[in-house]
Parts: sequence; C-alpha cells; structure tokens
Amino acid sequence: MVVMGIDPGLANTGWGIVEERRGECRCRAYGCIHTAADTDLPARLRKIADELTGIVGRFHPQSAAIEGIYFGANVRSAIPTAHARGAALVALSFAGVEVGEYTPMQIKQAVVGTGAADKHQVTYMVRSLLHLDHDPKPDHAADALACAICHANLGRTEALSRGAYTQGKGDSRS
Amino acid sequence: MVVMGIDPGLANTGWGIVEERRGECRCRAYGCIHTAADTDLPARLRKIADELTGIVGRFHPQSAAIEGIYFGANVRSAIPTAHARGAALVALSFAGVEVGEYTPMQIKQAVVGTGAADKHQVTYMVRSLLHLDHDPKPDHAADALACAICHANLGRTEALSRGAYTQGKGDSRS
Repeated sequence: MVVMGIDPGLANTGWGIVEERRGECRCRAYGCIHTAADTDLPARLRKIADELTGIVGRFHPQSAAIEGIYFGANVRSAIPTAHARGAALVALSFAGVEVGEYTPMQIKQAVVGTGAADKHQVTYMVRSLLHLDHDPKPDHAADALACAICHANLGRTEALSRGAYTQGKGDSRS
Repeated sequence: MVVMGIDPGLANTGWGIVEERRGECRCRAYGCIHTAADTDLPARLRKIADELTGIVGRFHPQSAAIEGIYFGANVRSAIPTAHARGAALVALSFAGVEVGEYTPMQIKQAVVGTGAADKHQVTYMVRSLLHLDHDPKPDHAADALACAICHANLGRTEALSRGAYTQGKGDSRS
C-alpha cells in the first residue's frame, strides 16, 4: 500500500510517500512545499493545493494521513496552519484520496514509542524505520513521513474517515 | 462592479452577490452552503469549494471579500472556521477572483456605523442598504452580504490583496 503523509503549515507543508509491504515501510519520496510570506494568502493556499495534487498524480497513494493541529498557547499560530490544512484536504478530496487524521502525540507514539518524543528522536526513528542512509530534512518532511508510517502501521481500516475524525469533534462546529 | 461576500464556516458558509453602481448597492443573490456534521471533513471542505466555484461561475464577481476569523475564548471553534476559510480561498484563487479580507468589526462599522452592532442591526442595515423587501436569512447570508457591501463601499483599490492581509499578519507564520 502506498501512503501519503502530510504535515500542514502555511509557510511549509511537509509531505512524504511511504510504501508498506508485509509490515515493512520503504520511502518513495518526500519534500516540503514552501510558500513565501510576502505572497497573498489565497495564492499561498492555491500553491499548497496545486503541489499536493501534483504529488498525488505522480505517486498515486491509496490513502493519506494528515497531522492534526496542536492547540498551543498561541491561537494565532494555529489559524494559518488550519488554513493550509483546509487547502490540503480540499486537494486530497478532489483527487479522490481518503484521509486519516492523527494528533502529533499519536504520531510520535506510533513512531518513537512515546508521545513526548522530540524532533531529533522522530527524525532518527523515521530514518531507521525507512532504512534511509540520511536524515530526512527539513523537519516538516520528517514529520510527514512519520505521519505516513503511523497511518501504514495502524492500518487503513482503523484510521480512515469517520473513525479518525472522532477525536476532532470540534471540527463539526461552524 | 459585482462583488461576492463570504462568511466562512464549516457547517454554514454564507455567500452574497452585490452589484455596486455609482455608490448604490443592489442584491443579486445570496444563500448558505450547509455541510452535515456526520460527513467527513475533506468531503465537507470539498462541498464548500465546489459550491463557491459554481457561484463564481454563475455571477462572475469582479472581486470577493471574506470575513476574518474572530479569536474568541474558544480556540477550538476557530479551527473549523479556518479550515472552511482555507477551502473557500483555494476555490476563489483557482477561479481567478481577487479577495479582500475584513474583520467582523470592520464589516459592522462599514454597514451599521459601529463595530459593536449586533446581528439584528446588521440584518436591518443590509436589508435597508440593498432595498430588500425582506430580511436576508440565515444570519450567515446576511453577514456575507454585509461583507460584500463593506468591500464595495471601501473600494477595490484600498481593500484588495496585500493591503487587506496586512491586518492578519499571523497568517504569514507556519
């Protein structure tokens, strides 16, 4: 199964493509979509949607997984991430790819074994689990690969669509 | 000039089309895109993007205006609105419509004359300014029409693109 992982962000949206066979994950590709801060918001969101659509067309993932939004102390920083996430989800929906959703803690738990893992530990484990001979960079791409690994390991059945969204019930409100 | 106004929300996205001629605004159409809470998030966002694209194709607005997000006490409720807003902005960008952004306070100030106006006052003034013989309903549609009136009155030059986004600098962060 080919799985796409996405770590959404307005300035940097990480993406990763992982192929899972008999419990083993291999990396097919990864990267980061950068949008310039001096470009207007609609154009930045369009670039994210455009590039993700292109990546889906190139690798044909059977399913995708996207990282949830961490509600930190700074609300303002969560809003642009949610804008980018909306753009990404629209692109995936138009491309016909089903999407699972995981919290940052679930992803760390699945990849490192603890939800409190730091970025270095995530990168180290992604490198190890995917048998890479280098650290995947930037961090956004490593996080996207971790999200894809989490999704591949937990399995499509458990993670897709409705079940995956139960955790984010706030999303059902206007 | 034909202007489209949008009041984004995940469950209800209000829209309104206003035609401005020599300082007078007339209502061309308005409505509300509803998405069901038991549908998954990507499908809901896709519906918003799909329907807005259809409305642009029907009325050919020269420009659009979208309401900003109010950062209230409840962060969770702002996130789904930001998702919907991301979907709407992607649709408008793909449709080639430039978008201005206004805070709820700016819209109330422009339509009622005070940023502290309540929903009834906004609906009353929208009805009056557009010479309607009925109250535009639901509130989301009235708010979208108010947003379009605000944009038409303040003028394209002042409100579009970069200038309009200066107020929302938080959007430039990932």
